[in-house]
Amino acid sequence: MSLLEQVNSPEDIRGFSVKQLETLCGEIRRYMIDCCAKNPGHLGASLGAVELAVALHYVYNTPVDKIVWDVGHQAYAHKIITGRREAFKTNRTYKGISGFPKMSESIFDTFGVGHSSTSVSAALGMAVASKLSGIDEKIVAVIGDGALTGGMAFEGLNNAGSMKTDILVILNDNHISIDEGMGAMHNYLLKISTSETYNRIKNHVWDIIGSARLRRGVQKFMFSTKMAVLKSGSLFESMGFRYFGAIDGNDIGQLTTTLASLRNIKGPKLLHVITKKGKGYKPAEENQTVWHAPGTFDPVTGKRSISAGTSAAKYQDVFGETLLELARADKKIVAVTPAMASGCGMNIMMREIPERTFDVGIAEQHAVTFSAGMAASGLLPFCNIYSSFMQRAYDSVIHDVALQNLKVVFCLDRAGLVGEDGATHHGVFDMAAFRPVPNLIIASPLNELELRNIMYTASLPDIHAPIIIRYPRGTGEGVDWRDKEFVPVPIGKGQLLHNGSGTAVLTIGPVGNIAAEAVRIAEERGFSVLHYDMRFLKPVDTDILKDVCANANRIITVEDASVIGGLHDAVCSYVAEHAPGLPVIGLGVPDRFVEQGTVKQLRHECGFDTEDILNAIIE
Amino acid sequence: MSLLEQVNSPEDIRGFSVKQLETLCGEIRRYMIDCCAKNPGHLGASLGAVELAVALHYVYNTPVDKIVWDVGHQAYAHKIITGRREAFKTNRTYKGISGFPKMSESIFDTFGVGHSSTSVSAALGMAVASKLSGIDEKIVAVIGDGALTGGMAFEGLNNAGSMKTDILVILNDNHISIDEGMGAMHNYLLKISTSETYNRIKNHVWDIIGSARLRRGVQKFMFSTKMAVLKSGSLFESMGFRYFGAIDGNDIGQLTTTLASLRNIKGPKLLHVITKKGKGYKPAEENQTVWHAPGTFDPVTGKRSISAGTSAAKYQDVFGETLLELARADKKIVAVTPAMASGCGMNIMMREIPERTFDVGIAEQHAVTFSAGMAASGLLPFCNIYSSFMQRAYDSVIHDVALQNLKVVFCLDRAGLVGEDGATHHGVFDMAAFRPVPNLIIASPLNELELRNIMYTASLPDIHAPIIIRYPRGTGEGVDWRDKEFVPVPIGKGQLLHNGSGTAVLTIGPVGNIAAEAVRIAEERGFSVLHYDMRFLKPVDTDILKDVCANANRIITVEDASVIGGLHDAVCSYVAEHAPGLPVIGLGVPDRFVEQGTVKQLRHECGFDTEDILNAIIE
Repeated sequence: MSLLEQVNSPEDIRGFSVKQLETLCGEIRRYMIDCCAKNPGHLGASLGAVELAVALHYVYNTPVDKIVWDVGHQAYAHKIITGRREAFKTNRTYKGISGFPKMSESIFDTFGVGHSSTSVSAALGMAVASKLSGIDEKIVAVIGDGALTGGMAFEGLNNAGSMKTDILVILNDNHISIDEGMGAMHNYLLKISTSETYNRIKNHVWDIIGSARLRRGVQKFMFSTKMAVLKSGSLFESMGFRYFGAIDGNDIGQLTTTLASLRNIKGPKLLHVITKKGKGYKPAEENQTVWHAPGTFDPVTGKRSISAGTSAAKYQDVFGETLLELARADKKIVAVTPAMASGCGMNIMMREIPERTFDVGIAEQHAVTFSAGMAASGLLPFCNIYSSFMQRAYDSVIHDVALQNLKVVFCLDRAGLVGEDGATHHGVFDMAAFRPVPNLIIASPLNELELRNIMYTASLPDIHAPIIIRYPRGTGEGVDWRDKEFVPVPIGKGQLLHNGSGTAVLTIGPVGNIAAEAVRIAEERGFSVLHYDMRFLKPVDTDILKDVCANANRIITVEDASVIGGLHDAVCSYVAEHAPGLPVIGLGVPDRFVEQGTVKQLRHECGFDTEDILNAIIE
Repeated sequence: MSLLEQVNSPEDIRGFSVKQLETLCGEIRRYMIDCCAKNPGHLGASLGAVELAVALHYVYNTPVDKIVWDVGHQAYAHKIITGRREAFKTNRTYKGISGFPKMSESIFDTFGVGHSSTSVSAALGMAVASKLSGIDEKIVAVIGDGALTGGMAFEGLNNAGSMKTDILVILNDNHISIDEGMGAMHNYLLKISTSETYNRIKNHVWDIIGSARLRRGVQKFMFSTKMAVLKSGSLFESMGFRYFGAIDGNDIGQLTTTLASLRNIKGPKLLHVITKKGKGYKPAEENQTVWHAPGTFDPVTGKRSISAGTSAAKYQDVFGETLLELARADKKIVAVTPAMASGCGMNIMMREIPERTFDVGIAEQHAVTFSAGMAASGLLPFCNIYSSFMQRAYDSVIHDVALQNLKVVFCLDRAGLVGEDGATHHGVFDMAAFRPVPNLIIASPLNELELRNIMYTASLPDIHAPIIIRYPRGTGEGVDWRDKEFVPVPIGKGQLLHNGSGTAVLTIGPVGNIAAEAVRIAEERGFSVLHYDMRFLKPVDTDILKDVCANANRIITVEDASVIGGLHDAVCSYVAEHAPGLPVIGLGVPDRFVEQGTVKQLRHECGFDTEDILNAIIE
C-alpha cells in the first residue's frame, strides 16, 4: 500500500517523517499526472505546489486552522489529501468535484475561488473573525505571483498590513501566471529571488535553522532573516508585513521547518516561496504555458493528444487572426489583454506586432481604463477579456469608457457556459449587466465569419461608440472564414435564418445554430417557425421585433446567458409596450449558479439544447 | 483688475513671476471660497491643490501636454484657470459645469473622472499613444493618497513601472481621503513625510536647487534626491518608478522648479508632494472631514448653514443609528465601509464599537470580499457601499458572496439619482446588474421606517442569503422611525399603498411616495388606480403581479434606476409569460447618462416626477 493510499485526511500525514513526506509528495505528483492525463485539468500550477499543500496540512491544524487558496489552480494536492483522492478522478466533470476549492465540497475548502487575487481579503476577514470570537485558529492565504498583480490583492495587503491581526500570506512565486509574468512586481520578485547576496544569506539562515537548538535557532532565524531580507522584501515591509524568504517551495523539509517557526509569530507576515510550475514532470517544466492546462496526454511520453476528428477553428483563432489582419491595415489598432494572450489568441498579433500588443498582467480594471486612455488619445484598442473576468471591470467600462463614449472594442471571450471550469467561470451575466449602460453597442456573432465581420465593422471609423463583442470558448461552427473578404455588418440589425409564421424563435450568438437545428426538425414535423438571429442585444433590432409581433403568435427567445436581463427581457420589454398579447418564453441559463460539466451537459441541464428548443416550439 | 481676472487660459500665466503666481493662488483660493460659500462643492481638496494646478499649467504645455486628475475633487483651480472662471459659478448645478473634470467640457480635461484610482491607467494609455504616434507631449497623472489605496491604482503603477514609457505620477498627499486615511500605505506615506532625516535631507536638496547654477544643480538634485529617498521611496522604486520628494505642494516656487526639472526626465517617475486639505482657509484646515464638502457657509465667519426648515432625518442617520442598535444586540454584527464612514453614517457605530467597525480605505472589492471572509467565519457583516462605487465590486459580490451564498448585508447608499455629483455618481445600474445574480435578495425600502425594518429583517438568523438594500442619498420622507419597535418585513412581499382598478402603478423604493401623490391626484380626478410598493426587486412578489394581472388593464412601473433591466423588465417578463395582453409602461432613468442638477430637476428631466406619473396614469 502506498503512503498516498493511507492518507484520507491531513491527520494521517502529521506523524510522517520528512522522508515519508517526500515520498508522499512523489506519489501525489504521480497520481495527479495520471489522473490529468486522462481527465484534463490545470496541471502545471498544482505540480508546483505539492510540497506546499502537504507542508501546510502537516504543520497547521486544519480544518481548525484555515488555508485560503487564491485562484485554486494550484490546489489539487490539497484536494487529494483532504479526503478527495478517489473523487479527484472526477475532477472538473459533470457532477464530479470542482477544479477549484469550493466551500460546499469540503470543510477543508475554507473559501471558494476561481477568479484571482481574493485570498488576502477573505483570509483577513477570517482572521478578524477569529480575533473577535477569541478562537485560537491560524489563517493562511496562499497567493501566486500572478494573482498578486490584481489590484484587489494589493487592497487586501494594504488593509492587512495596517491591522495587528495575525495572518500569514504565502507568496507562491513561480515567475509565471499563465503566460510569462508581467509588470513591475514580477521584475521585483525576480530580482529578489535571483540575487546572489540573497542566496548566500539564505543558506546561512538555513544553516542556523537546521541545528538542534531549535528554539534559539528560531530566534536567530527571525533576526537574521529580518536583517538579510530587509532590502529584498522592503516592498512588503513598507506595506506593514514582516517578510520572510525567499525559500525553496519545493523542499518539503525547509517548508515544514519554516512554517512551524512562523506559525507562532504574531501579526501580518509574508513568506515568499519559490516553486517551479510543472515541477517533477519534465514536459511540464519545459513548456509551462502549454502545460498550464494541457488537455489529455500520454503520461509516459508526455505527448499531448490532438483533438480527434475536428479541423474546425476555435473562436480564439478567429479573434487572433482577424485582429492581426486588421492591425496590419490600421496602425491605430492596439490590443490589450489581462494575462490571457495565449488563451484568447492575442499572441498571434503579439508575435508580429509586439509594440502594439499589451499584456498588462492580471488586472482587468487597468486593462479597460488603460484602453480608455489610449482611445482618448486617438488609438483604437481591442481589449480582450473573458466574460466572467470582465465582471471585475464593470465600473471601468461604465465610468471610463461608456460615459465618455470612447471607442474601445471589447472582445468578451468565454461568454456563455464555459464547461469544465464551472460556476466561477461561466460568462452568463454580461448581457444583463451591460444592457442598461448607455452608449454601448452589444453584439454576439452567430459563427466564425460573423465574428470576423463584426470585428471588422467595429474597426470602421464610422462607428463612434464602444462596442462589446461576446463569443464563446472553443471550437466554432465549422464555417469557412479564413481570408474571406470583410463585409460590414449593419449595427443593430439581425438576420432572418428561417421564414415562417406561428412561433418566432429569436436567438443571439452561436446558440442560434442549435436553435436552427430545432427549427429544421420542427418544420419537418409540420410546424411553421420564424427564426431570426438578433446579432445585437443593443441596439436591439426593432424592425425584426415589429415583424415578429405582426406575423407570429408567440415568441421563444434563446440565449447562452442568464435568462434574466438579457435578450428575453429586451424582447418582453418591447412586446409589453408595442404588442401586448404575444406570449414570450425565455430559454437560457436559469436563476441559479451552474456547476461544471461539458457545455453540452450543462446546456441540457439548463434547458436550451436542441431538444428543449424543439419542445418549446411544438408545445 | 486682479491677476485672476486676466487669466482665461493657462497661456496667460506662463509669463508670471513666482511672486505673481503666489498672488494668483491667493486670488483663486478666495474666489473658490466665495463661490463655494453660495454654491456648495468639494472645497477642501481643491483648496489644498491650488498651487499644484497652477504650477502644472505653468510648467507644462497644456493642452498639448496632458494632466489627468484622479477623482477630480481637487481640480477646481484647474477649472478656474482653464477658461472656466465665470462658469465655475455654475459648478455642479443643472446645465452648469460638472464638479469633476469632463472631456466634453474642456480640451484641458483630458479624461473624465469622479470615481477614484483611474488616473495612472488612463495616463499610461495616453503616454503609450504619444509614444506610438511619435508626438512630443508629456503626460502627468495627479493622484491623492486616498485614491492610491484603490487596487486599480496599484494595477496601473505595476504596469507603468515595467514599461519604459514617459509618465509622471504626482502623489498629492494630504494624509486624508474624506475620513482619516486608512491602511498600510497611509502609514507608510506618513512615515516618509514626517521623518526627521527626510526633512534634513530635503532642505539640503533644496539648497542646491535654489542656487543659480541650475543645470548642474538639477543633476545634483537628482543624484542627491535619489540617494536621500532611496529608503523612504523604496516602495515606489520597487515598483519601477523613480521616486522624487517629498516636497511642499503648497509652495509654488518649489513646485515649479521641481516640475521643470522633472519634465525632461525619461521613464516612469513619481513626485510625492505634501499638501494641506483646506489650505488657506482656517475652518477648512481645522476640520478637514466636515469641510470636504461643507455645503453653503458664510465665507467670512466660516459658519456653515443649517438646512432650513426641515427636521427630517437623512437615510444615512437611519442606517447609522439602526446599525448601532442591531450591533449592540448582536455581537456577530460587524460593519465595513470603503472610506465612507461619515458619508454613510457608519461613524455612529464606529464611535461606540470601533472594534467591530472597519474602514478599509478606498477599496470596494476588498470591502466586499473581506466581508465575505468574515461571513464565512460566522460573523454577520453589514457592508455599506455607495451604489455607483459598488460597480467596482460587481465580481466580488457575484464570485465571493452570492456564489457561496454567504450572508452579507449590502447597504447600497446613494442609490438612484444623486443630484449634484452628476453622471459618475448616479446609482442607477445596480438593480439591472444584480437582478440576474442567483441567491441575492434585493430590497429597496419605501421610507425611513422600512429601511430600519428591512435592516432588522436582514439581521435575523432565518435569512440565509446575501441581501442588497438600496436607498437614496439625503433627507428621508419625514416618517417617524426613531426607537420604533422592530417589525420583520416578509422577504419578497410588497405592500398595497392604494386599492383600485384600471391602471396599476408598481413602484420600488422611496419614489413610491412621489407616485402616491400622483395616484392621489388621479383619484381626485376620477381615475381608479391600484398602487403597490413592490419593496423587493428579487424575489419579486408574484402574488402582487398575479393580482395586478387579474384586476388592472395596464401597468405603470416607476423606479429610481435605469428603466432597462430592473423593475420594469421584471414585470414585463412576468406579464409576457403569465398574462400577455397587459401593456406595461416603464418610468425611470432613460437609456442615456444623466448629468448633474438637483434630484428634483433630474427626476423631471428623466420623466418620473409626480406630473409625469400622473400623466402616464390619465393618458
